[in-house]
Amino acid sequence: MSLTYTAPLDEMRFTLKEVFDAPKFWQNNEKLSHVDEETVDMILDEMAKFASEVLLPINQSGDEEGAKYLGDGKVATPAGFRQAFAQYAEAGWIGLGGDPNFGGQGMPKMVTMLTEEMLFATNQSFALYPNLTVGASICLLAAASDEQKTKYLEKMYAGQWAGTMCLTEAHAGTDLGIIKTRALPNDDGSYAITGTKIFITGGEHDLAENIIHLVLAKTPDAPAGSKGISLFIVPKFMVNDDGSLGERNAVQAGSIEHKMGIKASATCVMNFDGAKGYLVGAENTGLAAMFVMMNYERVTMGLQGLGASVLAYQNAARYAQDRLQGRADTGVVNADKAADPIIHFADVRRMLLNAKTNSVAARTFAMYVAQNLDTAKYSDDTAAAKAANAKVALLTPIVKAFVTDKSFAAAIDCQQVFGGHGYIKEWGMEQIVRDTRISQIYEGTNGIQSLDLLGRKVVKDGGVAMSAFLDEIDAAAGASASSHSIVASVKSSVQTVRELTAKLIAASKDDANAINASAVDYLHAVGYLCYGYMYLLIINACEGKAGEFYENKRKLADYFVARSLPSLDAHAKMAAAGSSSIMAFDAGFFA
Amino acid sequence: MSLTYTAPLDEMRFTLKEVFDAPKFWQNNEKLSHVDEETVDMILDEMAKFASEVLLPINQSGDEEGAKYLGDGKVATPAGFRQAFAQYAEAGWIGLGGDPNFGGQGMPKMVTMLTEEMLFATNQSFALYPNLTVGASICLLAAASDEQKTKYLEKMYAGQWAGTMCLTEAHAGTDLGIIKTRALPNDDGSYAITGTKIFITGGEHDLAENIIHLVLAKTPDAPAGSKGISLFIVPKFMVNDDGSLGERNAVQAGSIEHKMGIKASATCVMNFDGAKGYLVGAENTGLAAMFVMMNYERVTMGLQGLGASVLAYQNAARYAQDRLQGRADTGVVNADKAADPIIHFADVRRMLLNAKTNSVAARTFAMYVAQNLDTAKYSDDTAAAKAANAKVALLTPIVKAFVTDKSFAAAIDCQQVFGGHGYIKEWGMEQIVRDTRISQIYEGTNGIQSLDLLGRKVVKDGGVAMSAFLDEIDAAAGASASSHSIVASVKSSVQTVRELTAKLIAASKDDANAINASAVDYLHAVGYLCYGYMYLLIINACEGKAGEFYENKRKLADYFVARSLPSLDAHAKMAAAGSSSIMAFDAGFFA
Repeated sequence: MSLTYTAPLDEMRFTLKEVFDAPKFWQNNEKLSHVDEETVDMILDEMAKFASEVLLPINQSGDEEGAKYLGDGKVATPAGFRQAFAQYAEAGWIGLGGDPNFGGQGMPKMVTMLTEEMLFATNQSFALYPNLTVGASICLLAAASDEQKTKYLEKMYAGQWAGTMCLTEAHAGTDLGIIKTRALPNDDGSYAITGTKIFITGGEHDLAENIIHLVLAKTPDAPAGSKGISLFIVPKFMVNDDGSLGERNAVQAGSIEHKMGIKASATCVMNFDGAKGYLVGAENTGLAAMFVMMNYERVTMGLQGLGASVLAYQNAARYAQDRLQGRADTGVVNADKAADPIIHFADVRRMLLNAKTNSVAARTFAMYVAQNLDTAKYSDDTAAAKAANAKVALLTPIVKAFVTDKSFAAAIDCQQVFGGHGYIKEWGMEQIVRDTRISQIYEGTNGIQSLDLLGRKVVKDGGVAMSAFLDEIDAAAGASASSHSIVASVKSSVQTVRELTAKLIAASKDDANAINASAVDYLHAVGYLCYGYMYLLIINACEGKAGEFYENKRKLADYFVARSLPSLDAHAKMAAAGSSSIMAFDAGFFA
Repeated sequence: MSLTYTAPLDEMRFTLKEVFDAPKFWQNNEKLSHVDEETVDMILDEMAKFASEVLLPINQSGDEEGAKYLGDGKVATPAGFRQAFAQYAEAGWIGLGGDPNFGGQGMPKMVTMLTEEMLFATNQSFALYPNLTVGASICLLAAASDEQKTKYLEKMYAGQWAGTMCLTEAHAGTDLGIIKTRALPNDDGSYAITGTKIFITGGEHDLAENIIHLVLAKTPDAPAGSKGISLFIVPKFMVNDDGSLGERNAVQAGSIEHKMGIKASATCVMNFDGAKGYLVGAENTGLAAMFVMMNYERVTMGLQGLGASVLAYQNAARYAQDRLQGRADTGVVNADKAADPIIHFADVRRMLLNAKTNSVAARTFAMYVAQNLDTAKYSDDTAAAKAANAKVALLTPIVKAFVTDKSFAAAIDCQQVFGGHGYIKEWGMEQIVRDTRISQIYEGTNGIQSLDLLGRKVVKDGGVAMSAFLDEIDAAAGASASSHSIVASVKSSVQTVRELTAKLIAASKDDANAINASAVDYLHAVGYLCYGYMYLLIINACEGKAGEFYENKRKLADYFVARSLPSLDAHAKMAAAGSSSIMAFDAGFFA
């Protein structure tokens, strides 16, 4: 009855090589010319093995046991996590995408995203420990001094030290401008950090010998609001010049949260009591440094959703093959048994296909964004890098919010396939739902992602970046040699989104509430278009190719057009309805 | 930080009295003429008090502690449950809707549904114990002999004895035709029941001195499938002729399930080992007897969803009033504070309004069905009773599935309002989500409800009952004096559903998979129409009335038209897409 997982390597390789022709992309980019197909294949095979053999077996037990606060600032991870982390670190996985100058392997996001998918598929809680370390290292790489990089990155890549991001405070979640954590300059150039951070993933644990906290705080004369936030390195143990560990710093976990899911991930309250911290970059540039990391992390949150929906799908599909109940509508299948497998019922398939069309589209979409991330980071063509960067900025909130929303729905659908058994812990499906629910909330709620998309990325630049993206999709549809219905569907969807975008930009000029009122539905409308675009790319990649694999991709695109894409219009209508029906109520009505 | 609840008595009374004019309805039905407004008001007040003061305080602690299997067939409910159940029973709540001939209070479903809403709002786990007892008593009242009724009902109404429904077996959930539990005739007219039932809510507990199990089993020469199922009374303790308890029967809980939610409700594996059972009604009529109860129970499942969404809404609204984060889009509200309450953000209101429009529509819809249940049961007008019965049959799957689906979405939206705090146990919101998730699964999954609607209730009678319902809505819209946009929206929605219905009936003639492929989307399309119809009835009831209460109802209807109803078209399109894109895959594709 335990969950099983087979990494969808064929699907991954199809996406990587046939849809996006990654080998050619790497060849064409000097800075990625070290990436070769054979190595990548080996990486995927190895991670598939590690995920199935090491991480999946400690997924349900980790949920059952949970991370534990032992008192006195100590946190224990569940049985098996230490060994798994050690094995993971030793294999070099944490530095897979890291800078080779500091011992990283320099693999592009197009590759690391696939390893992350497998990680999240098999153990969402475990995945967060290395993931936060990777996030912190990306932040350091982008904003820290060479000395700091040398001091910290190598050991973080090696998993010897872990990392965290300390942003949220009890009264300051979305609104980081009002944080209260203070940084007072010491005589030696360091700062004394004092304050309490909450919801710190991996704030304390027993997996690594040191933890490098990246902390947002305000210096004494900092400007008010988000322009006065600085970023600090606060190590759990001080680091001597020779790299050895010194004394314990004044930072300690006060407790851990008891949560709906990801229970094996320690979510800590962190107390900084004059802890020694080192400024990263210049004062008051902390948020900017964080945002370098955010684009990577938010794509990764989409991968959490994707991974969860793949695990949910595989197990629901297996259950539907095994579970005998009733007789198929088209006639008895199992004449020798009392009932037929429920996979023969269209409604069961509908639920499975919702999950499957999501995972295929989500992986393709994440890969599309990953390729743009890699172009932005590694391309020598400045114009191409700039354009890619703009596209990443535009699409990141969508890959974070739309993919996690659709993946949560997929997990719910797959749980539903199990009937009553889906509600029972033993079967594992309800854990997938509980675990992946967080992906819609953290790293900026999906509502905040939607405001980022419509407010900052669309309205603020007058729709220029979105318009360029819509043109690209339109051109791709126009150029497609396929006769599949996805082509026409994508064309008409582009038109719908184009009109909606223009309408909302116009509305925002007269109505201060327009963006907030329409953001989530707008993101969903655009999200469906993005998935449609991905199916167009998939269909193009299948063009002229025979065989079941490609045929099934065409069928999935059929299903997407028939049974998923109609939601685009509904969201577009709701987004276009504006703020009046929402803001008509007095605030006091809500009680 | 704990959850609060204020029973929405104004809303309830508005629905009961102003939308459906219940006092007049009771007056016009001889068998309900004993129901007076004053008593009903008192009942609602008392239940509101009990729910808030007794049930809510043991809701989170009950989840934390959970029901416990003590070994040797014994189950303990969490702290406070025994006292609460005793108090609940003593107040006569279990017999509120029961037959006065056996000590019940004869209150109609229009009243009991409101008490059930409050029960489920404040403690979904607790609610199930009396609820199953009520369900079993309804079943007995409909199908048992007078002797049996006399023997059991009074003590069940009094809460001295509890009841269960034992249907599901490990291999037989949806498909009850393949159950294996056997009933062998004894010499004394009783039967020896042997088999194992799973997922038995309240199968064992410490709340009552006896438990009356209603068990589905097959007699030796029963026809195969669902036509060969009989219903038996199997008491935990045998009942002597004088009503006193005799020896322990051979039925015992083997274990309880560990579940995603409703953890304080004991979900038992029940082992029947030649237990003495008494046939209810004739052999092989067991399913029919169960279905009498089902219409009541399935409406009650809708009320579970409704209750959960009300609790979620109230707490999210309160949080949104208290939580300061960012500045309102229309300018600073709290000049003396660092931030404004998030209730000023349109997106936060959107989530709250999704929940609020759901709860108002769901309550109205449940009341509409409850009135038809009461007409079917109590009316002297045979034609009216028959018509009401047909409408109940048509709408029951919708009130079960659509209301629980929309209520789950509402709970998710309200959890989202809390940001990260929504994911933390302490705040209580995640429990609402976990608890109410079951309502989409049990009592027939929502997929099964959808098949019931489209297959048995629509296609099977050639759409006659649905057509009559659509005519009724159309006529109501045509007769409405209101200028509100809901009128035109409902009219056009009727047309959409009418065309869809005709299309699906036609499709089912040529395509054996047509019903299964379209059922869920069809139910959702019809569900949105039902909610629209309810807003029409609400708007009609508000017509010509001034004041904030009525004005807010008109605004809610505006919101529903602008931001919810557009989903109807999407579901209609997906339902109309048929089975081809689903059944095109080989069964082996799903892996």
